[in-house]
Amino acid sequence: MKPALPDLAAVEAAGARLAGQAVETPLLESHDLNARTGGRVFIKPETLQRTGSFKFRGAFNKISQLPPDAKGGVVAFSSGNHAQGVAVAAQIRGLPAVIVMPSDAPAIKIANTRAYGAEVLLYDRYREDREQVAGRLAAERGAVLVRPYDDPDIIAGQGTIGLEIARQCQAKGAAPDVVLAPCGGGGMIAGCATALTALLPGVKVYAVEPAGFDDTARSLAAHKRLGNEPGKTTICDALMAAMPGELTFAINGRLLAGGFAVSDKEVQAAMAYAFRALKLVVEPGGAVALAAVLAGKIDLRGRTAAIVCSGGNVDPATFCAAIAGSE
Amino acid sequence: MKPALPDLAAVEAAGARLAGQAVETPLLESHDLNARTGGRVFIKPETLQRTGSFKFRGAFNKISQLPPDAKGGVVAFSSGNHAQGVAVAAQIRGLPAVIVMPSDAPAIKIANTRAYGAEVLLYDRYREDREQVAGRLAAERGAVLVRPYDDPDIIAGQGTIGLEIARQCQAKGAAPDVVLAPCGGGGMIAGCATALTALLPGVKVYAVEPAGFDDTARSLAAHKRLGNEPGKTTICDALMAAMPGELTFAINGRLLAGGFAVSDKEVQAAMAYAFRALKLVVEPGGAVALAAVLAGKIDLRGRTAAIVCSGGNVDPATFCAAIAGSE
Repeated sequence: MKPALPDLAAVEAAGARLAGQAVETPLLESHDLNARTGGRVFIKPETLQRTGSFKFRGAFNKISQLPPDAKGGVVAFSSGNHAQGVAVAAQIRGLPAVIVMPSDAPAIKIANTRAYGAEVLLYDRYREDREQVAGRLAAERGAVLVRPYDDPDIIAGQGTIGLEIARQCQAKGAAPDVVLAPCGGGGMIAGCATALTALLPGVKVYAVEPAGFDDTARSLAAHKRLGNEPGKTTICDALMAAMPGELTFAINGRLLAGGFAVSDKEVQAAMAYAFRALKLVVEPGGAVALAAVLAGKIDLRGRTAAIVCSGGNVDPATFCAAIAGSE
Repeated sequence: MKPALPDLAAVEAAGARLAGQAVETPLLESHDLNARTGGRVFIKPETLQRTGSFKFRGAFNKISQLPPDAKGGVVAFSSGNHAQGVAVAAQIRGLPAVIVMPSDAPAIKIANTRAYGAEVLLYDRYREDREQVAGRLAAERGAVLVRPYDDPDIIAGQGTIGLEIARQCQAKGAAPDVVLAPCGGGGMIAGCATALTALLPGVKVYAVEPAGFDDTARSLAAHKRLGNEPGKTTICDALMAAMPGELTFAINGRLLAGGFAVSDKEVQAAMAYAFRALKLVVEPGGAVALAAVLAGKIDLRGRTAAIVCSGGNVDPATFCAAIAGSE
């Protein structure tokens, strides 16, 4: 039996659980970005979230609801941001956490995950199936597998970003016509779309993905789940999901207005813009929605928009390669 | 006759003028920074302010009050952040602006000042007197000289940071025992101390300066204005004032609890920490107060503190030299 899809009430319940644990990230506005787009454009910097990405929201929403006897702890597979979110949420609950991470994940993500007290097991992204590795571990240890996106509690937790966008815009006397967010497996945007479309009828929510990994955009167009061609690469290490999640696409297929794909070069330009004009550290995968706007994929003239910058866990070398010569 | 020193009412009036023009920058809290210091430590990121530093506050407060017939426009001298603040404030008022900047100012600061519509005149920091150059220009053009710190309207404008810290802390159910802020000529900290000590009796406000440019710290200890030894260098281009201002020291000598000096190496470590843990782009001069805390210059265990990160206008090369190998 499929689990029930989360609704606005589930996202609001997640918000109540996260109060005092997650950061209510601010909603920023940049005069430069407004002038450049001709619209009113807000930035939701989840870079400032606990663990440096939005992933703590879903992880804590899930793990805080585990029964008191879940002594086997948790197991997760993740390229790095979900890893850190799960590690900290487990630490707060006093549960052991084992995280299966690709051996080529950014060093900062591996180091942080360990620093948050989790055991890290590295696997080969191109040869091993991380779900199998993690599933086996969970069975061996009697641990709960905390999936990165295809779980109603994870989706509801990430959806609190959408809740905050709606409320924070309202406090500024604005109502977004358009929201753009990065999309990997689709959990964050599914949760956001759940909250946003319930609170702001008519709002258009778009997924943004790296070129070559635009499975959600193509699936939306085809009205069915399509995978990515194998062998592609991207600097957006956080957004390399192979295909849309089953639960996430059940939501996204119904609620999203569409999707955009951006090139690595457009992502680097967005990281450089965030450095230069917004003074924010944004990782490649966190910058795709900003990249779509800066590259002109959508016309925001006269419109109000919110852009999620979803994470900032990036190694210095990758960051500096993006911002070099950007003044 | 000396101008009257600003009081809380002057800072509040500045706050009313700035509403809708300046960004009310958020007050951020980092679990990592709390754990590291043993206190509750808030960051006030003026990096997110319009023009990338706090300087817009004072410049707009001053320039918005110029009479309608001030057609000669404004002249300012600045290493770069005041330049940008004045340029944008003049642009908003539709007035011409000429800014005298050192030829070795960061490229991003010179480029931004020009992009905001100001005329930039470069001078040699080590051979020419910028006040003389700017004073001559103002006389020739019938323009108003907008000083970087020794002006009651500038001090009151920068003081709105202190106003916001007090209000934002209160909204979070906290009251700061300690506030640390970068100090060049001392305008920002003078304005902040004016607001903070009026609103939070007992709060201790500290100036932080680069080593070799700790004129305010030494002047506070000596109870009189002392200049810096010539020939020193620092990466903190924004904080190279030769001695405390006359007006600013009249305030700071009375209201500050003391001062700290930090080395370039400590500043780079703070910039790297801001990149890695806070995901904020902070320029060298903007990072000195954070550097003082991270270097253990003050014991914050069990205390509540606010740290001003005053600006983020830094060239990629300088930034990347600071963050290299920081993971």
